[in-house]
Amino acid sequence: MNDSSMPSPAADGAAAAALSGAEVAALVGGVLHGEAPGPFRDLRDLRDAGPHDVAFFAAGGVGARPPRREDLDALAATRAGLLLVADPQHAGGRPHVLVADPHLAAARLLRRFVGADAAPEPTGPPEVDPSAVVSPEAELGAGVRVGPFCVVGRGAVLAPGVVLHERVSVGAGVHVGAGSRLHPGVVLYPNVRLGERCTLHANVVLGAPGFGYAWDGARHLHVPQRGGVLVGDGVEIGAGSTVDAGTFRPTEVGDGCILDDLVQVGHNCRLGRHVVLCGQVGLAGGVEVGDGAVLGGQAGVGNRVRIGPGARVAGQAAVFRDVPPGGTVAGSPAVDYATYRRMQARLRRMGRHDD
Amino acid sequence: MNDSSMPSPAADGAAAAALSGAEVAALVGGVLHGEAPGPFRDLRDLRDAGPHDVAFFAAGGVGARPPRREDLDALAATRAGLLLVADPQHAGGRPHVLVADPHLAAARLLRRFVGADAAPEPTGPPEVDPSAVVSPEAELGAGVRVGPFCVVGRGAVLAPGVVLHERVSVGAGVHVGAGSRLHPGVVLYPNVRLGERCTLHANVVLGAPGFGYAWDGARHLHVPQRGGVLVGDGVEIGAGSTVDAGTFRPTEVGDGCILDDLVQVGHNCRLGRHVVLCGQVGLAGGVEVGDGAVLGGQAGVGNRVRIGPGARVAGQAAVFRDVPPGGTVAGSPAVDYATYRRMQARLRRMGRHDD
Amino acid sequence: MNDSSMPSPAADGAAAAALSGAEVAALVGGVLHGEAPGPFRDLRDLRDAGPHDVAFFAAGGVGARPPRREDLDALAATRAGLLLVADPQHAGGRPHVLVADPHLAAARLLRRFVGADAAPEPTGPPEVDPSAVVSPEAELGAGVRVGPFCVVGRGAVLAPGVVLHERVSVGAGVHVGAGSRLHPGVVLYPNVRLGERCTLHANVVLGAPGFGYAWDGARHLHVPQRGGVLVGDGVEIGAGSTVDAGTFRPTEVGDGCILDDLVQVGHNCRLGRHVVLCGQVGLAGGVEVGDGAVLGGQAGVGNRVRIGPGARVAGQAAVFRDVPPGGTVAGSPAVDYATYRRMQARLRRMGRHDD
Repeated sequence: MNDSSMPSPAADGAAAAALSGAEVAALVGGVLHGEAPGPFRDLRDLRDAGPHDVAFFAAGGVGARPPRREDLDALAATRAGLLLVADPQHAGGRPHVLVADPHLAAARLLRRFVGADAAPEPTGPPEVDPSAVVSPEAELGAGVRVGPFCVVGRGAVLAPGVVLHERVSVGAGVHVGAGSRLHPGVVLYPNVRLGERCTLHANVVLGAPGFGYAWDGARHLHVPQRGGVLVGDGVEIGAGSTVDAGTFRPTEVGDGCILDDLVQVGHNCRLGRHVVLCGQVGLAGGVEVGDGAVLGGQAGVGNRVRIGPGARVAGQAAVFRDVPPGGTVAGSPAVDYATYRRMQARLRRMGRHDD
Repeated sequence: MNDSSMPSPAADGAAAAALSGAEVAALVGGVLHGEAPGPFRDLRDLRDAGPHDVAFFAAGGVGARPPRREDLDALAATRAGLLLVADPQHAGGRPHVLVADPHLAAARLLRRFVGADAAPEPTGPPEVDPSAVVSPEAELGAGVRVGPFCVVGRGAVLAPGVVLHERVSVGAGVHVGAGSRLHPGVVLYPNVRLGERCTLHANVVLGAPGFGYAWDGARHLHVPQRGGVLVGDGVEIGAGSTVDAGTFRPTEVGDGCILDDLVQVGHNCRLGRHVVLCGQVGLAGGVEVGDGAVLGGQAGVGNRVRIGPGARVAGQAAVFRDVPPGGTVAGSPAVDYATYRRMQARLRRMGRHDD
Repeated sequence: MNDSSMPSPAADGAAAAALSGAEVAALVGGVLHGEAPGPFRDLRDLRDAGPHDVAFFAAGGVGARPPRREDLDALAATRAGLLLVADPQHAGGRPHVLVADPHLAAARLLRRFVGADAAPEPTGPPEVDPSAVVSPEAELGAGVRVGPFCVVGRGAVLAPGVVLHERVSVGAGVHVGAGSRLHPGVVLYPNVRLGERCTLHANVVLGAPGFGYAWDGARHLHVPQRGGVLVGDGVEIGAGSTVDAGTFRPTEVGDGCILDDLVQVGHNCRLGRHVVLCGQVGLAGGVEVGDGAVLGGQAGVGNRVRIGPGARVAGQAAVFRDVPPGGTVAGSPAVDYATYRRMQARLRRMGRHDD
């Protein structure tokens, strides 16, 4: 629920941890330099941190962006008691933990401070809001919580520790894996199977029938889509996104995939593990995306295109041809990145005044 | 509802049909070759089908794609008892029904097997979940079903056979035509009129006021949008899509249109009959789309642009100029397809190393 | 609610006003020409207006488009009793009010006719539907109305005059400013602060945690997003749009911003005042948009890009570099508009047959 009667693990764990500098270094796998007894109780923005907070500066680490002037100013002026940095020069003599990837270190530390990983073993009987409509033929595991105005269909299974916030629909026969959390307005059509420890944000829809039609001379005849949706473990899906049911076989989203808001995954798609789909990405029907591929915001992929493992697709690219493993493509229509850069250089020249 | 207490026609009819090969041929308008007494009880994917299943192979038919190696392998290895094909060579001597369009034939047969067209005449009094809030001044026809947590406003009309799954909002004065089905989370603002046999998937919103503003020197003044939305018969709209209310006159979606997920139709648009809008298409204000036009995924259309009947707009195209009847356009900004291809050929050359 | 038991101000005020031509002129700040005693009771489309209606013709005014033939025909044939025009020739000798911006004048007049600005002082105790789940520790101001199936969390504040239609979720500790209206299906996660007189349309989601992850070698580790969302006064957000929570500090949407449907605003973005985001715009993380900037439909903006005050971004543009104040950009990737036009002219030439 949104109500604090059903707190998130994060809320439970907040303010509990108090770490020394050495404990911080151990947690993030870094090396402590300087005196930092702490206790440190939080990780905050450079501009807001105080003597009992840790802060981080990501320039120089993995995934870093060139620092802006204001970031350097904030680094110089911060009152943080401990810094996570990849370059000792950034610490300027202040106590710091040296790590390869300050952003990752910050993520780990922040998760510790907010208790994100402290999921207690679910125990006790399910708690079901009296307003919820739960089929007597549904199965609810230990520690399950069902919020107001939910509907859980016949034969549905909510494994231990599942949390349904208010106004969630779980269709007949749907399986929701242990520890998964469904936010308000989520709809799971029948024939969806969701893994463990998944998070579905508000108004996500899984399993609506795919967009398959045949023109019969008078109208578009909808092709029944009975394949459902199969989602792996540890998948996180942003607000308002949709994953459509496959025709004969399930549309698949592999373990550890992360989808941002307002993404559409069409019917019969197959996403491998740890795929990243940024905001408003759209996959047509039967698209295959290999492990660890990353698609930038608003990218689109045509029917049955295959994107290899580890490939990268630039924001707003339109991919109509297969992308090889590890390949990088950009543009609409998308081409390999080296070609794209040459084309753009030529285009820019064409845009000059005197050309 | 999602609960099986409110089954779809499909669920009711499933497993009922058992057809001989001759009956299959008659149903799909094809010619049976070989011995195929059946009984055939389902249509399945080539890889999953058994002796009592029909399967289809679409290469060579209308709308066909070039077959992939894996598709040909599946065709060779299938255990299906009967094949729907457009080319007798694909059957390889096995029993088959020869049809012009195997995909269409498969759609017809699958709809028969799942009972998709077997909508019984609605009878009996409306069934309204006790939690639903239905105005005493709403009219509910025979066989109407209203799920949990619905709200139906004053003067709303739910014609015979309408099904509201749980958590559907039907505004004051709204008309929902006979046999239409609204999935969880659908919102119809007041001043919407929906035709017969429509399907609105989860979280569709019809009739939110259009994005019309006038800058008054200090703020954007919203222009009241009182035109509502008018949707024809047999329209199907995918999850999360929105159709905004017109300013003075209704935004119109014609008979038989099909809209995929996360589509936006702006205020004052007028869609003809059987228009196809693929996923994440966006139409600005006052766009007109002629009968049978098809817009690919993520295509966008600017204010008041006219797209002629039968026109085709490529995925991700940005259409700022009118498209003639039957025309095909691509690109951002969109140009006619022949021009687009020449431009792309030149651009590809520009992307070469030695150029 | 959608039910007329909770009418909008518009509905209340409709049909109340009856103005003379002189009163119309005074209201819109124009000059009356001709005899027009009225009474005028409504503003309607040129084609539908009668002797007691006002109509407008926008060609020649601010934001005008070149008139189409059908518009000129409608102007010639209209039976409207009074016209709002910027060019006296458009009136053709008929009674008219001359204004600089007929569209703005029409907006003002229409808002008057429908009573859009007549928000009465909220009084009386809150009215809460008996089905709603409202924490006893929430605060509800005078005249607040809470519809069926809403959930209001602990410590939430609904200031005077707030209206929650049915099925709205207001998270723990959220503040909703006076006079704001939340349509069905809206979800406010905890840590959202919404200003006064805001309108959130159906299925808007504010405050879902931003898309921040760090790869730890085995999985994408979600970075807790505790910054929440801060929305100013008079903000209007279209159906299905999402604004994600910031990491440490709030994602900000300034006073008077207007967002169309299915827009995504990523975490840590900062929008100034009166920003316009058209349909399906997507902003990645940490984007800054200055006062009064306008982004066309389906435009996308990359991480941490800055768009200056008053800038204009064309529809479907992909903005990866900062845009200066007052600048105009177009294209994917976006370049300044003059460059874009030259590039397009060259491209068109490349698309010619004989080139």
